[in-house]
Amino acid sequence: MKNTEKTMEKIVALCKGRGFVYPGSEIYGGLANTWDYGPLGVELKNNIKDAWRKKFVQENKYNVGLDSAILMNPQTWVASGHIGGFSDPLMDCKECKTRHRADNLIEDFDGTNVAGWSNEQMMDYIKEKGIPCPNCGKHNFTDIRQFNLMFKTFQGITEDSKSELYLRPETAQGIFVNFANIQRTTRKKVPFGVAQVGKSFRNEITPGNFIFRVREFEQMELEFFCKPGTDLEWFDYWRSFCKNFLLSLNIKEENLRLRDHSAEELCFYSKATTDFEYLFPFGWGELWGVADRTDYDLTQHINTSGKSLDYFDPETNERYIPYVIEPSLGVERLFLTIVTEAYDEEDIGTPEKPDVRTVMHFHPALAPFKACVLPLSKKLAEPAGELYDTLAKNFSVDYDETGSIGKRYRRQDEIGTPFCITYDFDSAEDGCVTVRDRDSMEQERVKIDELVEYINKKIAF
Amino acid sequence: MKNTEKTMEKIVALCKGRGFVYPGSEIYGGLANTWDYGPLGVELKNNIKDAWRKKFVQENKYNVGLDSAILMNPQTWVASGHIGGFSDPLMDCKECKTRHRADNLIEDFDGTNVAGWSNEQMMDYIKEKGIPCPNCGKHNFTDIRQFNLMFKTFQGITEDSKSELYLRPETAQGIFVNFANIQRTTRKKVPFGVAQVGKSFRNEITPGNFIFRVREFEQMELEFFCKPGTDLEWFDYWRSFCKNFLLSLNIKEENLRLRDHSAEELCFYSKATTDFEYLFPFGWGELWGVADRTDYDLTQHINTSGKSLDYFDPETNERYIPYVIEPSLGVERLFLTIVTEAYDEEDIGTPEKPDVRTVMHFHPALAPFKACVLPLSKKLAEPAGELYDTLAKNFSVDYDETGSIGKRYRRQDEIGTPFCITYDFDSAEDGCVTVRDRDSMEQERVKIDELVEYINKKIAF
Repeated sequence: MKNTEKTMEKIVALCKGRGFVYPGSEIYGGLANTWDYGPLGVELKNNIKDAWRKKFVQENKYNVGLDSAILMNPQTWVASGHIGGFSDPLMDCKECKTRHRADNLIEDFDGTNVAGWSNEQMMDYIKEKGIPCPNCGKHNFTDIRQFNLMFKTFQGITEDSKSELYLRPETAQGIFVNFANIQRTTRKKVPFGVAQVGKSFRNEITPGNFIFRVREFEQMELEFFCKPGTDLEWFDYWRSFCKNFLLSLNIKEENLRLRDHSAEELCFYSKATTDFEYLFPFGWGELWGVADRTDYDLTQHINTSGKSLDYFDPETNERYIPYVIEPSLGVERLFLTIVTEAYDEEDIGTPEKPDVRTVMHFHPALAPFKACVLPLSKKLAEPAGELYDTLAKNFSVDYDETGSIGKRYRRQDEIGTPFCITYDFDSAEDGCVTVRDRDSMEQERVKIDELVEYINKKIAF
Repeated sequence: MKNTEKTMEKIVALCKGRGFVYPGSEIYGGLANTWDYGPLGVELKNNIKDAWRKKFVQENKYNVGLDSAILMNPQTWVASGHIGGFSDPLMDCKECKTRHRADNLIEDFDGTNVAGWSNEQMMDYIKEKGIPCPNCGKHNFTDIRQFNLMFKTFQGITEDSKSELYLRPETAQGIFVNFANIQRTTRKKVPFGVAQVGKSFRNEITPGNFIFRVREFEQMELEFFCKPGTDLEWFDYWRSFCKNFLLSLNIKEENLRLRDHSAEELCFYSKATTDFEYLFPFGWGELWGVADRTDYDLTQHINTSGKSLDYFDPETNERYIPYVIEPSLGVERLFLTIVTEAYDEEDIGTPEKPDVRTVMHFHPALAPFKACVLPLSKKLAEPAGELYDTLAKNFSVDYDETGSIGKRYRRQDEIGTPFCITYDFDSAEDGCVTVRDRDSMEQERVKIDELVEYINKKIAF
């Protein structure tokens, strides 16, 4: 019997083989841990971002969008603390010259959580426990040094410190520095939120697990501004909202874990934080962070810029610095979650005739193609092509005329197309096509005139 | 009488004042020529990208999408010629220490086109004509040096040349290096195209004209692969396709100019190139470039990578390197084009009662909000809010309950909302609302039950 276990290996192979995700710059031997999203991957990625924007901005009366620049005035990163504190504790093995994160060495060695430890404490612990280099097994490390995770670049022409810039490590700060501009131009009243989708960059020393941890990634962040004192209520609101968003995309509750930070684990400025974790094939991994960040960020920018970022409440005549609830999610992680959740090897055979089909059970709104048009014979290419053109004006459609209908069904199952539409020799006469459902594999005769509406209803989100 | 001329000043003021575009990092004094797209700007930008993707990918049976990484293996830029040749000829004024592009100095001085000139020729011309520093008027320049326009950064932790990377200066190369992967996984036959939307970065010494020339920008590029010999036909096809795309977005033909490159102006590898220019308030500016790039790019990558990027034609059993037609467009330039084209100050007064309204005549598919719900009185907030919720499930909607209906109309005109929907005291009874058209200013009574369909039809693209 075929092993139908869901593994990273199989998921990665399907992603590469069907054009979801390719290794970046592959013809040049790649570039460590960069990935390119192929024809199907870009559709899935766009659908994920569209779904988020629909629920967090379009349908939500509190929130508006923003698209701020990747390159920001470096003072932003002074205020946010990234220049001072956004670093990893790294040490080199003097024997084999490999570089390691001290905190990971300890955690991987015996599971000790080192959150809040100083470099000295970690160094002492590594020596005391005799933790070896995971590459060569020797015990000859350099001291720990802190390395900043921001990618550095230079504006203008010269490489001097005056022109030094950073690629943003998060999109959130673009929202904070625009708080006053947005409030003034939209005339929004607190509570309101600002949502942003965009690229961020972190110079991680140990990226890995396919697209789970990458140096160049996309974030979907919401900064929700509310009145101090109402923040824990709003924290609960967004915590539930985010969970429901995942469930509405067909993520199973049993594969989700909401981990509330204990008092010791919380950042000093945070009143409450929840990590959403998903059960990936390699174990539980962080998917979404929801945090009550109090007025920390706006206060930091007020202090660094000298500008006023407080809010005047016209109803109570009070002036205050809003508190912030931040749900922060990576597009690639949600992509990997969606792909993992959707992946299935279904045993649809009999003892006499074993048969396993690989199928991606994507939510129809996320599926790269909503439908595929299959002419029963190449002789039907013309009317089938016309049907394709009509459908393609409304949603993303594939067209396949190669091989048996059964083989074509399987190819579409593997990329998660919800509907296969067979145009046959009766279609011209009776004005109907056969629609086959990806999940139930049931077939139904549908009028061509009603097809767009039929599919639109089923893919609604 | 009010001056109703369309100027950059007015367009920039509207963009900043209504939340289309803010100066980047403004609370820190900005960062030269970076811009953030506010709540309305991000909607317009997304609508522009969606419109392009719809016509170039979703509805076009030849093309598929891609989303490749910004950070690529540096060999990519060796092959593409960007490491060797992507530079500006710069010179410093020794008197006032300002830096200038030699080619711009000459072109601004007497309009001479210096395409193809060597540094020496430019230097001689500047001396011969006595071209002064535009800042201080002196004649004391350094020699011309070539400066590479790529932003440099470092992967990993150390700033050594081994870890040197570049922020991509164009999205096109991500398509070329993936040509074989895409062809194999999609099983597309030549001719086919690969379309990509994404950020690129160029360290321009003289950015300017609002968002017209910026260092960080988004491109929408198509690389269309075809059989050698059919390339000029396909060049014409895409040249027309791009022009029709602009016309379909309500860009007036009189504001467009298609400038075909002369034989002397063509790049050495190009068989044909057309620049699409638009009449901005500051004059004609390049909007879109369409080029027949022959097999130059794929051949460069074949030579540099040693990989095979040719195509086997299963119908003729021939093997060849496809030719490439490239229509390349910047999102920000199309944004500025759309905003410029839409901007209008309409004289709707009488001699006795002068009245000018500012209105953005956006194509409805591009308008940030498709409709705005206006309760006639705050007492109607509840049913009007329900109507807002219903509409917001289908498209982007605004809500405004402040001020007279006339004032609210004007606010929506200024941001280009095609439909204002007034919920009045009869609405609950007759199930109808008043819909006011942005362009004609005519009003119509429409059934609430039919409103979504009514608007969907009018905003279709």
